[in-house]
Amino acid sequence: MEPICAISTPYGTGGIAVVRVSGEGSIAIVDTLFCGRVPLAGAKANTVHFGRIERDKEVLDEVLCTVFRAPHSFTGEETVEIACHGSLFIQQELLQWLIDAGCRAAEPGEFTRRAFLNGKIDLSQAEAVADLIAAQSKAEKDLALSQLRGAVSNALNELRERLLHFTSLVELELDFADHEELEFADRSELNRLADEIEGKLADLMASFRTGNAIRNGISVAIIGAPNVGKSTLLNALLGEQRAIVSDIQGTTRDTIEDTLVIDGILFRLIDTAGLRETGDKLENMGIERSRQAAEKAQIVVVVREPNDRCAEREKTASLKVESDVPCSGTVIEVVNKADLIEGLSDHLPATKDERIYISAKKGDIEPLRRELVRAARETMHTGAVTLSNARHYEAVCRAHEAITRVQQGMHDCLSGELLAMDLKDCIDALGEVTGQITNQEVLANIFSKFCIGK
Amino acid sequence: MEPICAISTPYGTGGIAVVRVSGEGSIAIVDTLFCGRVPLAGAKANTVHFGRIERDKEVLDEVLCTVFRAPHSFTGEETVEIACHGSLFIQQELLQWLIDAGCRAAEPGEFTRRAFLNGKIDLSQAEAVADLIAAQSKAEKDLALSQLRGAVSNALNELRERLLHFTSLVELELDFADHEELEFADRSELNRLADEIEGKLADLMASFRTGNAIRNGISVAIIGAPNVGKSTLLNALLGEQRAIVSDIQGTTRDTIEDTLVIDGILFRLIDTAGLRETGDKLENMGIERSRQAAEKAQIVVVVREPNDRCAEREKTASLKVESDVPCSGTVIEVVNKADLIEGLSDHLPATKDERIYISAKKGDIEPLRRELVRAARETMHTGAVTLSNARHYEAVCRAHEAITRVQQGMHDCLSGELLAMDLKDCIDALGEVTGQITNQEVLANIFSKFCIGK
Repeated sequence: MEPICAISTPYGTGGIAVVRVSGEGSIAIVDTLFCGRVPLAGAKANTVHFGRIERDKEVLDEVLCTVFRAPHSFTGEETVEIACHGSLFIQQELLQWLIDAGCRAAEPGEFTRRAFLNGKIDLSQAEAVADLIAAQSKAEKDLALSQLRGAVSNALNELRERLLHFTSLVELELDFADHEELEFADRSELNRLADEIEGKLADLMASFRTGNAIRNGISVAIIGAPNVGKSTLLNALLGEQRAIVSDIQGTTRDTIEDTLVIDGILFRLIDTAGLRETGDKLENMGIERSRQAAEKAQIVVVVREPNDRCAEREKTASLKVESDVPCSGTVIEVVNKADLIEGLSDHLPATKDERIYISAKKGDIEPLRRELVRAARETMHTGAVTLSNARHYEAVCRAHEAITRVQQGMHDCLSGELLAMDLKDCIDALGEVTGQITNQEVLANIFSKFCIGK
Repeated sequence: MEPICAISTPYGTGGIAVVRVSGEGSIAIVDTLFCGRVPLAGAKANTVHFGRIERDKEVLDEVLCTVFRAPHSFTGEETVEIACHGSLFIQQELLQWLIDAGCRAAEPGEFTRRAFLNGKIDLSQAEAVADLIAAQSKAEKDLALSQLRGAVSNALNELRERLLHFTSLVELELDFADHEELEFADRSELNRLADEIEGKLADLMASFRTGNAIRNGISVAIIGAPNVGKSTLLNALLGEQRAIVSDIQGTTRDTIEDTLVIDGILFRLIDTAGLRETGDKLENMGIERSRQAAEKAQIVVVVREPNDRCAEREKTASLKVESDVPCSGTVIEVVNKADLIEGLSDHLPATKDERIYISAKKGDIEPLRRELVRAARETMHTGAVTLSNARHYEAVCRAHEAITRVQQGMHDCLSGELLAMDLKDCIDALGEVTGQITNQEVLANIFSKFCIGK
């Protein structure tokens, strides 16, 4: 394919930056600008060469060029990576010189797109490259890396092979459809196969909840009565003054979101307005948002004050949370301001009567941090393969629907022709994930979300 | 030296990022984390290797490692450059893993400092690396690159050699001091040498004004009466709505600065408050700032309206500029709103009666852009070597002072011992620029200004 070029390192000024050139004739194009000991044309694959980038006697920079030869490169094409000094001016100028010399500026994700088109990776692996670059936590990185290394592809390819086998059995039935005297010993095997495939697809679908949580963070709503210290707790967890804190009830009005990584798990913390009965219209709007946040969150942290200190408020909050707010996630109850409880002041126990005692103000929140990690792990799928991509999830859902139709069809003794159609739908849906079945629009949409230079 | 590591590419998320490891044992340390086809220990110099970064069965990323062997690397030490996926998480984690494996996190500029300490480059070249990374324009890049390639060092080394030759002649005189009968045929040669060295040092000092202009931009003050369109002109030059524009006199109060590159030259544009007699205290403070800006600027653009339209204001502005504001730089007079002049409306001539006619509102400012470039080139030094570093300038000034003392001393027939002392001062001052004479404090100061990773 035609040679393309782009800055592959992050945007900005740094020690060095890397400009990547890939496509037919890349080495020859770079050679028109590169003055080293020898031209790159004669360089061995995977070697690095020092020299100047020079044009019409103007030297742009001293650089290191790494030469890759097809098919042993990321794109599968001949590629040169030019490491220049990390001045923005030099980076942009180098790009311009390469374009003047015959390259085209690469579109977002075009290098990865070529890797896909050249068969170096499949579509789910290509998508994993973008996920890997965007990874913010260990869990996210592990997920993307496992996808890049083929975990999703392998799982789906295996299912696809079973489906092809299934289809061949159904077609065998078709061939013998006229011989009604034949016993169909395979019927039970077909049923077993359909059940197994349905089960595996259902597992994959279930894994998406985890994958999605890993990518977008596990949502944690912090709720409770006014002034129990919800915003102080948010700030203590984040280690910064993110939310405004005061002793005026109703200080927090809008929900405040920020992310936090504990033990490699990304959490999306949501601080909310204090729950209480009030006639204030603005405050009630805030309380409605708190309720919605708690309803949607995967983990709800209910903050209370020590019993003996504020029984009245406690009651209010309790009422709100347990009756009015239908939490679908895991509920963690914490007693804040534990430093005010006599006999607890020095060393806070992790739990006492199943609650967690903390002091957000003093930064004694370790018990809650541990509990968040425990709850997060519990909500996470433990299967071998985890879907994290909405496109994959949607395709697997369609495959699952199709296999359910097959099961139903066999139960209803539908004809082999009809079963085969549903089986084909199932196979095609899985093929969309790995890119065996695809269209230009889907590809364009996937790669447009990449950064330029990858 | 002990192995150090740092992220060398710009901070942020991108396609790829490069982590550099340099120092004794670097390759062995990376090998404890790298799983490729073969260990890097056996790799040839300047070769690239694909593999995984892995520890306790956790895979961090798939990477490319480039191996450099001493002394053929930037630092002169054995070095590994690890190109990983450009996720911030992966970059930081990779750094942490390397530190856990025995590397130390590099300090700002530590790689370049090692290149200097290992004799790969001298001090002025090391400083050029930082300048190159910070380069914002072609002129700035050219300056830094020429310094990196040794232009300043060579010029100063040549002067130093001449000074050493001079000193040896003076010492020859000293040896024969007892033989008063000897004719000192060398006296005139000494005088000639001192004059030549003094002249070259003076040239270098003069070049600093240019070097400084290139690095910080050539300052251009835009002055004139109120409402002649100074802010509109600033916006037109920048191609954006940088300054607030209105038809109310005194809209611009504070001076507004922004930079612009034309034909590879960096300009620092300064829009100022309109000059007029007024009793308004705030406005007068603004006008005082305009005056100061004009006084310090290397180029002053005086903006006027067409004569026939506003003779009154014209007079005021003229009065202010030519009598009250002592411009030391080049003055460019422009007539704005030229689109209002009959017969000029279609095609503006570049100049008419030595003024430049433009229309900032309509974006017809090309004649002024050309004139700015011409004036800038005129103010620039055209010598072979240009000083751009304040530390170099200061050292060259001291060398110049010392050589002037030598000239004076010869004129006053001072003893050879005294001349030799001044010569030594001169030689030492020049040695400070290239780092032949140095101290830890100066080094620490220089490298602390680098970014980490270079």
